[in-house]
Amino acid sequence: MNISQTPVVASNANPVAPIARVFDNDRSSAAYRLRIALRLKRLDPRRDHVVIHGAAATHREPAYAGINPQRLVPAIELADGTVLTQTLAIIEYLDELVPAPPLLPTSAVARAAARSVALAVACDIHPFGTPRVGLYLGEAAGLSPDAVRDWTRHWIREGLDSLDRLLAIHRKGRYAIDDAPGIADIFLAPQALVAERQGFDLGQWPILAEVVASLRLLPAFSETVPA
Amino acid sequence: MNISQTPVVASNANPVAPIARVFDNDRSSAAYRLRIALRLKRLDPRRDHVVIHGAAATHREPAYAGINPQRLVPAIELADGTVLTQTLAIIEYLDELVPAPPLLPTSAVARAAARSVALAVACDIHPFGTPRVGLYLGEAAGLSPDAVRDWTRHWIREGLDSLDRLLAIHRKGRYAIDDAPGIADIFLAPQALVAERQGFDLGQWPILAEVVASLRLLPAFSETVPA
Repeated sequence: MNISQTPVVASNANPVAPIARVFDNDRSSAAYRLRIALRLKRLDPRRDHVVIHGAAATHREPAYAGINPQRLVPAIELADGTVLTQTLAIIEYLDELVPAPPLLPTSAVARAAARSVALAVACDIHPFGTPRVGLYLGEAAGLSPDAVRDWTRHWIREGLDSLDRLLAIHRKGRYAIDDAPGIADIFLAPQALVAERQGFDLGQWPILAEVVASLRLLPAFSETVPA
Repeated sequence: MNISQTPVVASNANPVAPIARVFDNDRSSAAYRLRIALRLKRLDPRRDHVVIHGAAATHREPAYAGINPQRLVPAIELADGTVLTQTLAIIEYLDELVPAPPLLPTSAVARAAARSVALAVACDIHPFGTPRVGLYLGEAAGLSPDAVRDWTRHWIREGLDSLDRLLAIHRKGRYAIDDAPGIADIFLAPQALVAERQGFDLGQWPILAEVVASLRLLPAFSETVPA
């Protein structure tokens, strides 16, 4: 990789540094969000940054704690060595680094709506289904595998019920918010895939199912799915 | 309340609407975040918006689902009737509505750092300690009160361990990121208070303890604490 080939830095009062390394994991639905965002921005790992895959970017590799104290993926390392963590923070940074196409709507209210959909996934559904939570409930709390599965499914069902109603309020186009795929979609599609893999039929959430069907026609979403 | 007395709307290409109503709850640490943000922006509920308190803004009042499908606090209603949910989305909107003092740093990297601290709280600590989660674990999963308490304390300990290391990386001033209180602080201080109420001594996280001590000297943080 040649850092000098990274995309041109936005020239404004707030200089942003290019991404040098992306810490990814094929099995992570959070890492899937960032893969979608990088594709939407037309960044290419063969040209624009190095991708660190798999165990080297997870809690299974202790040295990773020196990169991300939370030992979660995704994370990015900038050309100056700064590491940024938390998917939404990374994607907002990416949106400043590479302004086109924008991942946030132009109106302030629609931006808030888009962020609220992303956060309803990131804060109120996703955390409950992560491997570390399943491990705690099974090992430390002594729940049976069936009880852990019930727990995971409970938060998906409750969360997607709410999300479908949020979309009914905020959706003004083909995708979650408007006719451009953006941060709401980037969080929605990976969570919908997790729901399907947990045995849910998306048809019970009609608006969400329609949005997800539209998103799956886009290579940025279909060619980056987790293993 | 007189809507015409609300702060002047930012005049740029992205018009923002003033806040008409704030759905608050004295017992919620998420609502505490928004109370801090409103105070930092020098908005005053006696002049700038109506505050809907308590049960009328929670899942205990079924009609609230018509305001916020997630039935969580906080939420805000704009002058045109639009409801915005999710604390971080609301606070980013507020930062666009009332630009001074800014709640995000001026450099893109510092903005990402601030958002990552806020999200590490919002996604990886706070969700596990909410009442609805305690209720599920106690009633549906059959965990004892002690096991629920162990669960809550586990995620606080692990989360604040990581946060203290994140602050070591990103902190460049008196508060979480720099010398201006902002979104990282707005998420950090309420979580620190929850930790203390769960019996933790903040001294085990020295950087976090120092930031929180500085924040508690500010009326925006000290005069808005939950019951």
